[in-house]
Amino acid sequence: MSDRTGIIAVFGPGLMGGSLLMALRRRRPGVHLAAWARRPEALDTIRHRGLADRVSTDPREIASDADVIVLCVPVDRMGKLAGDIAAVAAPRALVTDVGSVKAPVVAELEAIFNPGGNFVGSHPMCGSEEGGLDAAREDLYEGALCVVTPTPESRPDRTAAAADLWCSVGGRVLQMEPAAHDRAAAFASHVPHIAAAALVEALCSGEPAAKPLCAGGFRDTTRVASGSPELWTTILSQNRVETGRALGALASVLDDFRDALDRNDTDRLSRLLASAASHRAEILPAP
Amino acid sequence: MSDRTGIIAVFGPGLMGGSLLMALRRRRPGVHLAAWARRPEALDTIRHRGLADRVSTDPREIASDADVIVLCVPVDRMGKLAGDIAAVAAPRALVTDVGSVKAPVVAELEAIFNPGGNFVGSHPMCGSEEGGLDAAREDLYEGALCVVTPTPESRPDRTAAAADLWCSVGGRVLQMEPAAHDRAAAFASHVPHIAAAALVEALCSGEPAAKPLCAGGFRDTTRVASGSPELWTTILSQNRVETGRALGALASVLDDFRDALDRNDTDRLSRLLASAASHRAEILPAP
Repeated sequence: MSDRTGIIAVFGPGLMGGSLLMALRRRRPGVHLAAWARRPEALDTIRHRGLADRVSTDPREIASDADVIVLCVPVDRMGKLAGDIAAVAAPRALVTDVGSVKAPVVAELEAIFNPGGNFVGSHPMCGSEEGGLDAAREDLYEGALCVVTPTPESRPDRTAAAADLWCSVGGRVLQMEPAAHDRAAAFASHVPHIAAAALVEALCSGEPAAKPLCAGGFRDTTRVASGSPELWTTILSQNRVETGRALGALASVLDDFRDALDRNDTDRLSRLLASAASHRAEILPAP
Repeated sequence: MSDRTGIIAVFGPGLMGGSLLMALRRRRPGVHLAAWARRPEALDTIRHRGLADRVSTDPREIASDADVIVLCVPVDRMGKLAGDIAAVAAPRALVTDVGSVKAPVVAELEAIFNPGGNFVGSHPMCGSEEGGLDAAREDLYEGALCVVTPTPESRPDRTAAAADLWCSVGGRVLQMEPAAHDRAAAFASHVPHIAAAALVEALCSGEPAAKPLCAGGFRDTTRVASGSPELWTTILSQNRVETGRALGALASVLDDFRDALDRNDTDRLSRLLASAASHRAEILPAP
């Protein structure tokens, strides 16, 4: 089977990169897959499971002949890796990433890859609290929202190629400016993560006797708090201004609830809860 | 098949009551099941699905010969229903309920049923954002934490009978004082509900453009916010003092996060996130 994209190179085969290799292997058998990892053991697993045609711990070896380069390392390691491969990346290549924060990553990688216009940022929103290659799944991207964040420096054909990449593994593509992505992600992802962690910490410090009562609701509400602290420290730090603003908005609604409780204003409580239930149904229609 | 408990009467066949009937029908075929509902249509469904041997819209008719009476109506309707049946309930009967708030419900129902010592409060923690008989499932109580909240006014044999009831449908029983339950439930259930609703409302008012970015993490973190606003207004209002205290504890941890973001103190962010991840693993061991 042939595929016009000849070689796709995945850098960092963790949850996102490993799942991408699995999905490409199944959905695009005509593509040659190459994988880079820092640790040889990760590449042994990739090779053992037949998830790539070629692997190396030398980033330049993997980058030099790739048509598509996907950087799947933590956002604070993107710049170093990009610097290592920029000189060998082919002029025809699309370079994209999967970082959860876009404005700083895009600014850093554009300085390296554009002019040329080869780089376009991406954020497939299908991370999980379970990271690493062991958690990778070939259907991770199916139905997942994949945000693509071009700027005036990006070549339109590269933006289209990035969208095609995510579509080809089952993603739904949405195009946004990097800063708009970060403003939105603060509310949709970064502050929910903080709220989940804060619920756990508030319970453990304020009422440890409540631990045995944590049931299904608590489990779901706090699920994301089990995500990698290192990864999330970087994400929150890189998006700290927007996350701080979104935390302020959350605090303000929590104050409304607290005031309604203090006054035992059941009408107001009921309005707040009804509004949230109806807004949630609008945001997340039943599958 | 015989069962020493002759007749179990369920009042209010919604999610909790309907699931209890289904579970008892399957697990205790020797028991005679009776059901009361306000609306005849609900009883038609119960009868049609063979979930009870006898149904009535007259609470006294259902209560008078029952060995076990389980009140599964919203917490603000418990008192009225209890008043209706108190005079006819048999002296041998266990009376319990499934309300999510215990201290006020227990105080109200003890004034009606104890002396006699027949009443013992219960809170099976397996509610769902989907209420009503349509959402009922015969396995709802399997593995569910069922808190039983006796007081010095409760007869010990009734406390044991309440524990037996929940064990017989697969629940795990935990005994707590009503006030201790409410303090714990504020942290484990009521404040997580408010946080979920507040995350939805903060996003809708602060950054409506974030709506398309709400993915799996947001879905899980806010799931409980789709619960019935009427039911939850009553729960939060009945437990408003403890819920207010728990909200204060949450606000304090959120302030810690915001301060760490403002200072870009990644060490502190990392410590907060690592502590939450490790505490969550301790509270909710992987299944």
